[in-house]
Amino acid sequence: MPEQAGLFDGVFARGGADTSDRAWLQAMLDTEAALVRALEKAGLAPAGAGAAVTAAAVAGNFDLADLGRQAAFTGNPVPALVRALATIVPETAAGVVHHGATSQDIIDTAAMLLARQALAAAAADLAAAADAAARLAAAHRDTVMIGRTLLQQAVPVTFGLVAAGWLTALDEAGAGLARLTAGRLAVQFGGAAGTLAPLAADGPRVAGLLAAELGLAEPVLPWHTDRLRIVEIAGGCAGAAAALGKIARDVTLLAQNEVGEVGEAAAGELESGGSTRRGGSSAMPHKHNPVAAVSVLGCTRRVPGLVAILAAAAEQEHQRAAGAWHAEWQPLADLLQLTGSAAAWGADMLAGLTVEAEQMRANLAATGGLPLAERVTGLLAPGLGRIAAHDLVAQASAQAVKAGVPLRDVLLDVPELRSRLDAAGVTPEEIGAALDPAAYLGAAGQFVDAALAAHGRT
Amino acid sequence: MPEQAGLFDGVFARGGADTSDRAWLQAMLDTEAALVRALEKAGLAPAGAGAAVTAAAVAGNFDLADLGRQAAFTGNPVPALVRALATIVPETAAGVVHHGATSQDIIDTAAMLLARQALAAAAADLAAAADAAARLAAAHRDTVMIGRTLLQQAVPVTFGLVAAGWLTALDEAGAGLARLTAGRLAVQFGGAAGTLAPLAADGPRVAGLLAAELGLAEPVLPWHTDRLRIVEIAGGCAGAAAALGKIARDVTLLAQNEVGEVGEAAAGELESGGSTRRGGSSAMPHKHNPVAAVSVLGCTRRVPGLVAILAAAAEQEHQRAAGAWHAEWQPLADLLQLTGSAAAWGADMLAGLTVEAEQMRANLAATGGLPLAERVTGLLAPGLGRIAAHDLVAQASAQAVKAGVPLRDVLLDVPELRSRLDAAGVTPEEIGAALDPAAYLGAAGQFVDAALAAHGRT
Amino acid sequence: MPEQAGLFDGVFARGGADTSDRAWLQAMLDTEAALVRALEKAGLAPAGAGAAVTAAAVAGNFDLADLGRQAAFTGNPVPALVRALATIVPETAAGVVHHGATSQDIIDTAAMLLARQALAAAAADLAAAADAAARLAAAHRDTVMIGRTLLQQAVPVTFGLVAAGWLTALDEAGAGLARLTAGRLAVQFGGAAGTLAPLAADGPRVAGLLAAELGLAEPVLPWHTDRLRIVEIAGGCAGAAAALGKIARDVTLLAQNEVGEVGEAAAGELESGGSTRRGGSSAMPHKHNPVAAVSVLGCTRRVPGLVAILAAAAEQEHQRAAGAWHAEWQPLADLLQLTGSAAAWGADMLAGLTVEAEQMRANLAATGGLPLAERVTGLLAPGLGRIAAHDLVAQASAQAVKAGVPLRDVLLDVPELRSRLDAAGVTPEEIGAALDPAAYLGAAGQFVDAALAAHGRT
Amino acid sequence: MPEQAGLFDGVFARGGADTSDRAWLQAMLDTEAALVRALEKAGLAPAGAGAAVTAAAVAGNFDLADLGRQAAFTGNPVPALVRALATIVPETAAGVVHHGATSQDIIDTAAMLLARQALAAAAADLAAAADAAARLAAAHRDTVMIGRTLLQQAVPVTFGLVAAGWLTALDEAGAGLARLTAGRLAVQFGGAAGTLAPLAADGPRVAGLLAAELGLAEPVLPWHTDRLRIVEIAGGCAGAAAALGKIARDVTLLAQNEVGEVGEAAAGELESGGSTRRGGSSAMPHKHNPVAAVSVLGCTRRVPGLVAILAAAAEQEHQRAAGAWHAEWQPLADLLQLTGSAAAWGADMLAGLTVEAEQMRANLAATGGLPLAERVTGLLAPGLGRIAAHDLVAQASAQAVKAGVPLRDVLLDVPELRSRLDAAGVTPEEIGAALDPAAYLGAAGQFVDAALAAHGRT
Repeated sequence: MPEQAGLFDGVFARGGADTSDRAWLQAMLDTEAALVRALEKAGLAPAGAGAAVTAAAVAGNFDLADLGRQAAFTGNPVPALVRALATIVPETAAGVVHHGATSQDIIDTAAMLLARQALAAAAADLAAAADAAARLAAAHRDTVMIGRTLLQQAVPVTFGLVAAGWLTALDEAGAGLARLTAGRLAVQFGGAAGTLAPLAADGPRVAGLLAAELGLAEPVLPWHTDRLRIVEIAGGCAGAAAALGKIARDVTLLAQNEVGEVGEAAAGELESGGSTRRGGSSAMPHKHNPVAAVSVLGCTRRVPGLVAILAAAAEQEHQRAAGAWHAEWQPLADLLQLTGSAAAWGADMLAGLTVEAEQMRANLAATGGLPLAERVTGLLAPGLGRIAAHDLVAQASAQAVKAGVPLRDVLLDVPELRSRLDAAGVTPEEIGAALDPAAYLGAAGQFVDAALAAHGRT
Repeated sequence: MPEQAGLFDGVFARGGADTSDRAWLQAMLDTEAALVRALEKAGLAPAGAGAAVTAAAVAGNFDLADLGRQAAFTGNPVPALVRALATIVPETAAGVVHHGATSQDIIDTAAMLLARQALAAAAADLAAAADAAARLAAAHRDTVMIGRTLLQQAVPVTFGLVAAGWLTALDEAGAGLARLTAGRLAVQFGGAAGTLAPLAADGPRVAGLLAAELGLAEPVLPWHTDRLRIVEIAGGCAGAAAALGKIARDVTLLAQNEVGEVGEAAAGELESGGSTRRGGSSAMPHKHNPVAAVSVLGCTRRVPGLVAILAAAAEQEHQRAAGAWHAEWQPLADLLQLTGSAAAWGADMLAGLTVEAEQMRANLAATGGLPLAERVTGLLAPGLGRIAAHDLVAQASAQAVKAGVPLRDVLLDVPELRSRLDAAGVTPEEIGAALDPAAYLGAAGQFVDAALAAHGRT
Repeated sequence: MPEQAGLFDGVFARGGADTSDRAWLQAMLDTEAALVRALEKAGLAPAGAGAAVTAAAVAGNFDLADLGRQAAFTGNPVPALVRALATIVPETAAGVVHHGATSQDIIDTAAMLLARQALAAAAADLAAAADAAARLAAAHRDTVMIGRTLLQQAVPVTFGLVAAGWLTALDEAGAGLARLTAGRLAVQFGGAAGTLAPLAADGPRVAGLLAAELGLAEPVLPWHTDRLRIVEIAGGCAGAAAALGKIARDVTLLAQNEVGEVGEAAAGELESGGSTRRGGSSAMPHKHNPVAAVSVLGCTRRVPGLVAILAAAAEQEHQRAAGAWHAEWQPLADLLQLTGSAAAWGADMLAGLTVEAEQMRANLAATGGLPLAERVTGLLAPGLGRIAAHDLVAQASAQAVKAGVPLRDVLLDVPELRSRLDAAGVTPEEIGAALDPAAYLGAAGQFVDAALAAHGRT
Repeated sequence: MPEQAGLFDGVFARGGADTSDRAWLQAMLDTEAALVRALEKAGLAPAGAGAAVTAAAVAGNFDLADLGRQAAFTGNPVPALVRALATIVPETAAGVVHHGATSQDIIDTAAMLLARQALAAAAADLAAAADAAARLAAAHRDTVMIGRTLLQQAVPVTFGLVAAGWLTALDEAGAGLARLTAGRLAVQFGGAAGTLAPLAADGPRVAGLLAAELGLAEPVLPWHTDRLRIVEIAGGCAGAAAALGKIARDVTLLAQNEVGEVGEAAAGELESGGSTRRGGSSAMPHKHNPVAAVSVLGCTRRVPGLVAILAAAAEQEHQRAAGAWHAEWQPLADLLQLTGSAAAWGADMLAGLTVEAEQMRANLAATGGLPLAERVTGLLAPGLGRIAAHDLVAQASAQAVKAGVPLRDVLLDVPELRSRLDAAGVTPEEIGAALDPAAYLGAAGQFVDAALAAHGRT
């Protein structure tokens, strides 16, 4: 959590991602310092200038609030920052501070540094979440539960398959972030309009040195008006949020008291010197809120709108946009922070998830075998003919629903039906086998194995 | 600008709206204090409890960052705030702190208080912007300029009409905010699930007293899961942003060097002890950036995505949502702040707008009369017949475009055309009159007058 | 449902709203015809021209697909439509077709006509939904159920209160639509750049006559570049969708098999000549999907993004936007259609909702009285002291949760606890009363009555 | 353009992408047919069933509108489609139609087929646009123009550099689409809840055969509730729209009459049998609207909101979502269609772009050398000292701005300034060279070369 903790940070700024204003400021300073070092290496700055500026370029040396106020004069805080930086370094170094650069170079490159830090934190938490999902999938490979479509009970699945679906989504979303980090975080350095004119023929060389100093990629040409990188980061965050939000939604639904198939760990976190149980409620001792899942959703629900802001902001005029560029800064920071927070909550949620296999069995049993009606039809068809078999089972199912008893009981206990089963040569044991959910799981186990194998390769 | 100034606040937190975390905290405390006063008035709290809690309920008495951290335990900062508040008031008062309320009551009501403050600030700046637009409309009621459609020169308008369009949009957007403030900012007070059960039959009476204490409306019933108010606030902000963004877009376009029809005032704002001209550039002395217009756009471009977040968050489950409610807090605050900042920048932009009537005339003259070609057709039709008139003017227009000379010159100087004009009995003076843009303005003046009259009634 | 039914219209185009391309075309034609009638009334068109154009202005007379193709030449279909219309009316009328107007006048005014029709349909269905909610609220004013926060059981509410919350949301959303329809649907008529120059001094008079012909409001001045009306329509739709989406979300949750507190009516709709039960599944006879609720959510989930598109599109350049205007057409139509469809589904959903009061009682009983623990504390406090009372109840609650038995049983059956109750002078009858959910409903009934009264005033 | 042309298709459905309802229907049928072929290959369907169903699975054989109506019964059109398909194939084949599948399998897989077709069309048009941009970049590598930041003239660039920036954006956006097509378009086949239970152990084998039949990837496990693929497609479209929208915005700005640096080709497209010039206006012969750029923007401005819808829809419950899944269908189709249309318009726009190098020079000359003021400072610094040099140039620049004359003239013609230049030993020739924009282009040429080289590698 960043130093400048906010009132809602416990929910929205969990995990290691830090895109606070202080982090922004430091990233801008890191860029300015790296530029002077690059200029020095290129022979365009006095010896020692790089080290001198690097030593001074520490956020704590600057009055963030004052820089913020001065942003009103030029529309961004960099000019004031450059002046302030130049005043605290030796005069020889002062002359090369910001040389060749424009405000956008500093802010865009700083944004890439923020993104790298935040995406790394998010990726680590996604990986931790995936590991936890993998453990769940392996442990519950064969734990039978009812599958639900449109929020209605449908046919049996396994909790292992559910967790394997979560796992694959997390792994694939993580791969998306890795792809971004590996290839799309590039230095922006173009000067006032992208030509690096003040550096004459040295521009590209300095750009390369700057990229090396910062460990960022060097783009084909300055990307100040090509915002694809920002849009791609937004897309990567949307992917991570998609995976996390789906899982958290499932957890909140499975954790409903009436369902009771999973729960969040209560322990593990205590307030300093106190006894606050996470998810607890002093007024309602029975309450055990799935705070991690709720927090994931609180974060992920904010992602789509932020993505839309960044996608719309990509329409930028000429060599620097009149507003659309500015509109990116805070939404990008928010998006990275929220994605990181959602990932951190997600890892925590999955690591502590309790699985109530007994309750899963109970909920499945409560369906009374109806999800397997079509299997009974298949069993009866050879003896009765397809149509008669279908009608018989439909009739039995309707009776079971009406009476609220298991399908098996209707089939075996209603004399008229039982006699027809007998006539078809179908035994009660065969009926029982057909109505065994554990025998109607298709490829669930194979899919779990495939997801675990794919996870092993990440 | 709020006390906790951020690095980009100069752009995004201009004006009087304050939705900072500190403002949130104070609004929550104001709600808690008002509740105890209401309870006291209802005879449900000891005498003096209201005053005691009110005295203690000052943001500065609390560790905002620590409350933020504790929000992780319950998903919001209120429980920690209530504990902290209870420890610093007399024991008799402590027992009634938060009585009957749930966290959502405090946060939702605090959001209404924030909204009231922020919307008032925004409305005041919208009104100031409208007044400035009205001055421009009146002063330039008859200042002719070229109208532009699809970014191409079309037919003449007046700058007064342009400003009148801005004016009406500002007035109508302001009316939207006023409607919200007058009728839709309501207290939320329902207790754990909306029944106010701990207060038994006293609930509605306390709710009424609480509303009165805070000067908020009393809703038909608690609105904890009916988020229409939030959606309406978002809609009001979107309306204000729509008006402001359109004007700022026009200003950036009209202020282009190649157009040069308006400019932003350079003066008026100086950094403390310095000489920074707003919109200036130390490296480029000719540069005079329309910083206010750019900042308006920087704010307004972030509005649609935030509106989408709030609209989507309205789908809230049962008696309190698992994530969707949480997802509202910061986007709502951001939306209010950005709307207020855009309005403040907009008022500043319009109050200082310089209008270059001479340049407007020059740009219009550069069209060479072509926008008025259809009028010449009408002039010639009685003498030549409609079709021949059309063909003649089309031919002349094509020649004018090709040669880059005014249509008038072609009509009068090309012998073949001139002879046909003569034959039609049309004089050079009549041609000149038909090509006078100031005589082809239709109802522009009437529309300006109507807009000013409507503004006078606001 | 529109004539040009699409593959997904059963879900997304239910109800009376029609914003199909054919409806667009007819609305454009209605506008062109009304303009000629207005011109005729103003003495600017030959007698009979209005009637002649009105007779010809029927969508079926035009090749919609061809108009669509020709839209590529000018960026919109109106110029081709005007040419086509002019060719099928008498020559005297042809000369005044579209006189004074520009394409935007026709499309914007047509959009208002579409909006009026669609909003009326949506409002009627919202009203029907509200009536159904009112019936539920009245019928179940005192039907006790468990309230749920963060998808966890919390404290008792009534289903009447739940339905009253739905009701108030529907009524207030409907009021929002009514306000739009009554005051904000205005004719757009400004000519090429908003001056109505071709009509000289007659412009405003014709505009007034046109407004009267169409039954639309007359704006202060042409609104071609002030998109507040579009943003307001979007806001109104977002409000309606917010109300409907929340209700549908509740219905899907309450209809879960494990909850079983409400269900959608199965009957009422049969495919022509067939036997398809809505929500049924041929393969799974037990399945009874809440298709109406699912369809509401399918519609409402698309609303926020469309609202964002329209809000962003409001930033329009000069006298006609280069793209932003065009970007409004289909999203506006989609938004109106989806809102109407959601409202129609919502009315259907609520009219047929079955309420399982017995299951509500069962689910509430399953909480074992824990939601009322704080009431027991209040009962014991006078005798035991507040702190000892709290500790006793907390201990008892923990045992009840652990043992899975009702709190009452623990309190009365565990000798150690029972003896302390006796010591405090609290009788089993008093304990039972304190644990009666029906006695802990606070103002639920009053709130239901207030919502019904407010509904009666709509 | 699809067969079912709509009223606005000329603008929004250009190019080869077809995501019309008819295309959806055919894609669903293609999936059903491929499934039967796969079953036959797996030995699970009678010989010839695949061919029989394939022959029948032609959209023209079905009543699309009726299927749309029937979608209301189940929430999607697939059940009705399956019934209709089964009735028109031989009975032996009818028994295996849809075997093992659920509606979501058919719709999700059909969506992938639509996406493949649409993305291929969009990618081809993006590539054509990139080729055109490359030609512009090469042809104008050294064509000097003024760069503009915040819509104000800044420092010189080349049009080649501008076009190179467009080129790189198009190439990188195209690479994003290619990555999607190559790796992320996967078959969805999981049956009712993702286990493929009706196929028992054969499920994964049939899934592989189905993927092979359709030429789609085979996922690790069914992705019915992992919507990352949809989010990634949305992200790819957002990237393409970002590139295209930025270019179109530049074109509209450069094509303004007052700027006049580029124009769209007028010729090339004529309505059938007519003489409609694209971008022309019958009423205003001088008007030459950049219809292609406007249409690009009309399309791209709708993209961010659609992306937000799809990103938000990814939060899907359990084994099939109650609404969120449904909410994807039309926005995904719209997004693909709009991206394709924008790409087609973009290719057309760039292929026909006329570049007015003369006007670029004139606009640059109109800056009077001020963008190069800092270069003069550098020239004078050795002789006058840095501070005196800066002051002198600032003074001269201010005079030049005020008088509206070139900086060069002020420097050389104002005696006081001239004498100081002489004193510094700077000649008029040196001043002239310093003020030559063509000599202050930094790495512009190198960047153009790099972009062209990178394009050559695509």
